[in-house]
Amino acid sequence: MRDRKLHLGAFMRPVSIHTGAWRYPGAWADANFSFPRLKYLIQRLEAAKFDAFFMADHLALLNMPIEALRRSHTVTSFDPLTLLPALAAVTERIGLIATASTTYNDAYHVARKFASLDHISNGRAGWNLVTTANPDAALNFGHDAHMAHGERYKRAREFYDVVTGLWDSFADDAFIRDQESGIFWDPARMHVLDHKGPELSVRGPLNVARPVQGWPVIVQAGASDAGRQIAAETAEMVFAAGGRLEDAQAYYADVKARAAAHGRDPDRIKILPGALVIVGDTVEEARAKHRHLDSLVHLDSAIGSLSVALGVDARQFDLDGPLPEIPETEGGKSGRERAIAMARREKLTVRQLAQRLGGYGGLALVGTAATIADEMQHWLESRGCDGFNVMFPFVPAGLEEFCDKVVPELQRRGLFRTEYEGTTLRDHLGLERPANRFFPG
Amino acid sequence: MRDRKLHLGAFMRPVSIHTGAWRYPGAWADANFSFPRLKYLIQRLEAAKFDAFFMADHLALLNMPIEALRRSHTVTSFDPLTLLPALAAVTERIGLIATASTTYNDAYHVARKFASLDHISNGRAGWNLVTTANPDAALNFGHDAHMAHGERYKRAREFYDVVTGLWDSFADDAFIRDQESGIFWDPARMHVLDHKGPELSVRGPLNVARPVQGWPVIVQAGASDAGRQIAAETAEMVFAAGGRLEDAQAYYADVKARAAAHGRDPDRIKILPGALVIVGDTVEEARAKHRHLDSLVHLDSAIGSLSVALGVDARQFDLDGPLPEIPETEGGKSGRERAIAMARREKLTVRQLAQRLGGYGGLALVGTAATIADEMQHWLESRGCDGFNVMFPFVPAGLEEFCDKVVPELQRRGLFRTEYEGTTLRDHLGLERPANRFFPG
Repeated sequence: MRDRKLHLGAFMRPVSIHTGAWRYPGAWADANFSFPRLKYLIQRLEAAKFDAFFMADHLALLNMPIEALRRSHTVTSFDPLTLLPALAAVTERIGLIATASTTYNDAYHVARKFASLDHISNGRAGWNLVTTANPDAALNFGHDAHMAHGERYKRAREFYDVVTGLWDSFADDAFIRDQESGIFWDPARMHVLDHKGPELSVRGPLNVARPVQGWPVIVQAGASDAGRQIAAETAEMVFAAGGRLEDAQAYYADVKARAAAHGRDPDRIKILPGALVIVGDTVEEARAKHRHLDSLVHLDSAIGSLSVALGVDARQFDLDGPLPEIPETEGGKSGRERAIAMARREKLTVRQLAQRLGGYGGLALVGTAATIADEMQHWLESRGCDGFNVMFPFVPAGLEEFCDKVVPELQRRGLFRTEYEGTTLRDHLGLERPANRFFPG
Repeated sequence: MRDRKLHLGAFMRPVSIHTGAWRYPGAWADANFSFPRLKYLIQRLEAAKFDAFFMADHLALLNMPIEALRRSHTVTSFDPLTLLPALAAVTERIGLIATASTTYNDAYHVARKFASLDHISNGRAGWNLVTTANPDAALNFGHDAHMAHGERYKRAREFYDVVTGLWDSFADDAFIRDQESGIFWDPARMHVLDHKGPELSVRGPLNVARPVQGWPVIVQAGASDAGRQIAAETAEMVFAAGGRLEDAQAYYADVKARAAAHGRDPDRIKILPGALVIVGDTVEEARAKHRHLDSLVHLDSAIGSLSVALGVDARQFDLDGPLPEIPETEGGKSGRERAIAMARREKLTVRQLAQRLGGYGGLALVGTAATIADEMQHWLESRGCDGFNVMFPFVPAGLEEFCDKVVPELQRRGLFRTEYEGTTLRDHLGLERPANRFFPG
């Protein structure tokens, strides 16, 4: 029995982050929008005792050139808050994390939908709070231009206060349901939020009882300075960018220190970098799978991914030259900075950088169950993370291999649960149920 | 075998419309927000071959005085678009109709969520398009005042055009998924809507494939002149107010004539009045149940319901006098007009009107399976309706009695299906799959 165990999320939208995934021999090309396939996958993950199924989101087609986009299996995907209730009904324990944007949503809808999901799933909901990096989303929501980065984060912070305030609309004991007296609930145990802020005006109360978990688990992925700060103040799980271990350690220390400075217990923020995991019976077999997978990425897609990361059209560059200077945009900062740093550090040409990113440019653990468990253990013990958001190279085989080979190895080492200890996502992550701010104790 | 058969929807939010329902002996007081209970109920309805499970909605607490509201089991309820995907996962054939407001939603979200639900349920989604009559909703969505009735309907009509246009973003054959060539989809088979109207500006395309049904079934409940007109132009199923048969016949003829005048086939609009159905082994037993149920409605609730219907606080009136003149408000017109007409027609005091409305003031079919089947058959054959949206007096017993006694009687008479003939909600209702307006044929 170890002091600290790994937490494992499955990052499932797209079902594989790797652009070539749908072309891999035996892969389900339609998995991204087939409910029967998704049901199979989540039931496999639950049998392996994963903490959560984690679904990212986009509010527009990915903003890449059409030549690349027509090769992408991510062109369509279900709305996460519509898919996850359906997956809740076919599972019993695994957590369900849905992404929802604070830039292009009403706080009342977000509060109500997550509260509903938390009740329906009996306490398994998590909200991945994002500000939406894709500027095309603005055009689908009545705006001419994307909100500036700083503005988005200011709104996000206020949005968080409103949503959590709405979740606290009713005391946990507000609903009496006394058939004899005819009193269904006690108005003295209801709070009207009456929020009037710079960005949002929401009266409340929410018309849903307080969630089973008090609040669904708050998840964030901020990597910029503003993103780290809001994560330190509010997040309970962070989807960190997987990169080099020393960068991850610095990020881990920084976010936990910011949380402590904000008066929070740093153990109440679990940091889980994303990691593409490719399993083989030998290290060489795993590397061969990785090479095969990358070979399925067309240069059109690779250039498209690079364009998304940089926020500019990369087709204008000399493919075999070094990456030129890239101007700032209003899109996400962190992706651009990571791509530029990778090119400078490894002296990659534009083509090489594109191919790396077009497959998957972040942390990849490629090897046998034993070498992958070694790496995960080293990251955990050296305070690079509290676990991982695992990304599968293709489905179903890549997911099945992780569940059948890596998970048992982690369990043998005492690094991962063999049974769920509790029933809620908070239980799995070791997080307390928050008190109601209006009805403490 | 009859020419015309009944269509049956189950109007399930609140699980019973009757305010006293949760106090009836043996009733599930928590059914409105218990997923296991709702799962049981929908599986019973599916076994009885209902066309659809139909969920209404409110975007605020009901605007009734707190003394009445604290007696109401409708104070909290799940978001329909979160509940119905979960119910989709535990059923196979029954249709799933969710209410969504065009006044307090973004068209892109509405299009995407219903498209997702239609895929997840394999073609069983319906959208009950409402403009939201409760003025308190405005305060939860950043507005100071409710949008005027005429404005709401103008926006609703444009919203419908945008949502259906977004559903047509991709031709049905757009997704090639050719693993060999690496082409996932064909950009020539995608349409960018680029809508710029007086109320909405939405570029598109939707990032979800075209729904299984082409479009989810469009449902409406408009009773005012503007409501009838938008129903005639766009609806495929109408939730009509159940009242006297002659009023229903006039409504039926009017909406079908308006549809024909708009160039539509009147058979493509199914009109289903709401009906509270109370079943007994004798007529007297059924009436006794009804009386018992009404006796569970507290005067506080009764006055509250009357206030909602009239759009004014009815506590100011003399309870034992006649109903005074009521001014126009910006709330729903139809409820007010129905209540006033009922009071005038039956010479009801304020108290009597309140008690009628506080229970359920609309069409009630109260009797044995045979007398209820007689009434339903008469309404169908005399062109008062194409079926009913059935409301149960309490759950589970009121729903079970309908399924176990009335449905078999209707089936014996050839008035209702004994098996589902198809798999989609359109199949159940006898509606065609709409062609894609941008990629016909």
